[in-house]
Amino acid sequence: MLRGFSRHWRPLAQLQAARRVATNAGSADRVALIQGSSRGLGLEYVRQLLSRSGQRVVGTCRTPEHATELQQLAKTSGGRLTIVRLDVTDEQTIQAAAEEVAEQHEHLDLLINVTGILHIPDKISPETALSRVTPEALDMVFKTNAFGPILTAKAFASLLEKAEKRSGASSERPAVIANMSARVGSLADNRLGGWYSYRASKTALNQLTKCMSLEFARKHRKIASILLHPGTVDTGLSEPYQKNVQPEKLFNRERAVQQLLSIIDSTSMKDNGRYIAWDGQDIPW
Amino acid sequence: MLRGFSRHWRPLAQLQAARRVATNAGSADRVALIQGSSRGLGLEYVRQLLSRSGQRVVGTCRTPEHATELQQLAKTSGGRLTIVRLDVTDEQTIQAAAEEVAEQHEHLDLLINVTGILHIPDKISPETALSRVTPEALDMVFKTNAFGPILTAKAFASLLEKAEKRSGASSERPAVIANMSARVGSLADNRLGGWYSYRASKTALNQLTKCMSLEFARKHRKIASILLHPGTVDTGLSEPYQKNVQPEKLFNRERAVQQLLSIIDSTSMKDNGRYIAWDGQDIPW
Repeated sequence: MLRGFSRHWRPLAQLQAARRVATNAGSADRVALIQGSSRGLGLEYVRQLLSRSGQRVVGTCRTPEHATELQQLAKTSGGRLTIVRLDVTDEQTIQAAAEEVAEQHEHLDLLINVTGILHIPDKISPETALSRVTPEALDMVFKTNAFGPILTAKAFASLLEKAEKRSGASSERPAVIANMSARVGSLADNRLGGWYSYRASKTALNQLTKCMSLEFARKHRKIASILLHPGTVDTGLSEPYQKNVQPEKLFNRERAVQQLLSIIDSTSMKDNGRYIAWDGQDIPW
Repeated sequence: MLRGFSRHWRPLAQLQAARRVATNAGSADRVALIQGSSRGLGLEYVRQLLSRSGQRVVGTCRTPEHATELQQLAKTSGGRLTIVRLDVTDEQTIQAAAEEVAEQHEHLDLLINVTGILHIPDKISPETALSRVTPEALDMVFKTNAFGPILTAKAFASLLEKAEKRSGASSERPAVIANMSARVGSLADNRLGGWYSYRASKTALNQLTKCMSLEFARKHRKIASILLHPGTVDTGLSEPYQKNVQPEKLFNRERAVQQLLSIIDSTSMKDNGRYIAWDGQDIPW
């Protein structure tokens, strides 16, 4: 359990060297699925996971044919990365993706739901006032940020459960569902208001994930569900909103994903249902 | 401010006698809008508010032509109750309703968003497992329980603001937006899981309302936004789920609304943004 955990950032190469010793044995035959992996944090998750020997990765995105960076990674992965189409706002594609992955892999050890929208040029921007809240934005933001991740978890739950059976009851390492939340989804921590759709979609994701964590625990399914706040990361999502962030709190993608994978790697059933910041601290609901 | 407040229930007639002394002066020229008033708690809000001398009420519902009980109340209200069509899932009807109400009334002192769905026979039922969560139910439940109330508040905010101007800066009584939430929307209090859509829609409503409360306070708009948990009330919504409720905790509508109106009547700007149970206690987020 990671309460109070904090770390100093180390360059990836150095971390990889340390991890080679610590986790290589554990990576063999491990399968991770990154939902929303064509760019930003999702792409970086794929890159860092592939650096682990034996680790297999499924990267999903809405339009694989446009995901050139992901395709590039697949070419050099020695067959360890496969790309699957999945549009998080369309459950048919989620279910089709689950069937496709089940043909490729007998189990899944890790599902990371990354996809999230905050702004879409000329279409959606975070509401600075109630007067700017529209049904169209609420609909699209919730479908992407809250409903999609839980429907993806639903579709892949049985594959994650097979990881449990594979590793046996003696294993301390559960399968993990990591949903990318955000600190602005906290109710207790909301002191500024604004960003109505984005905030509330992450709050809804928190509640849906909490429900899932309780259900799986009650049914003795060895799947730990956690909510992660990455901090402010230098990606397209945060790009227009970085000017008020202290430079040392604006993480590059490499560092952000390194920090989050450290949390994921250490996740046990005791962490089930937690809402965790990049430094391992609990965020109040 | 109502922290730690609790009360013993008194029959309505007795309460009305007490209220005649306490609030009659305050009811003259007061206008309340009950969104979702054709039945259940909404209808009871209308009934009890009309019992206050001088109080004017706007009752909205999706199909006024079918709202026979509301029509009956209007007939005997001496012109103090008007019925306006408003479908909380259709913003055009919300805006049309706001225009219609603005023609009838110069201000609004109270907006109560009551509409909520938990189950619709043969269509939606609260999910006992993740495997039963569907995009269709998420969509409909969130539109009704979370998006509708905030879009209604958006449409009526300027009328509520006029109440502020009317009463002047010396008045201690703000206009009130009371959104009917539920304890099951609490993240901290979620120990059982289940009811995914309903729970998370109320959690989202909590966050949207929190955002609104912060925005209005920052802009010095004298509108207090609160979230209310009515307890388990003997209505159509809770009917299939009453068997595990202790009889003394299953409130009839008369008592439930009496309790909630006591909270609303006492609301000051200090209560802005609170999440309050029927007995006046704060609910943890």
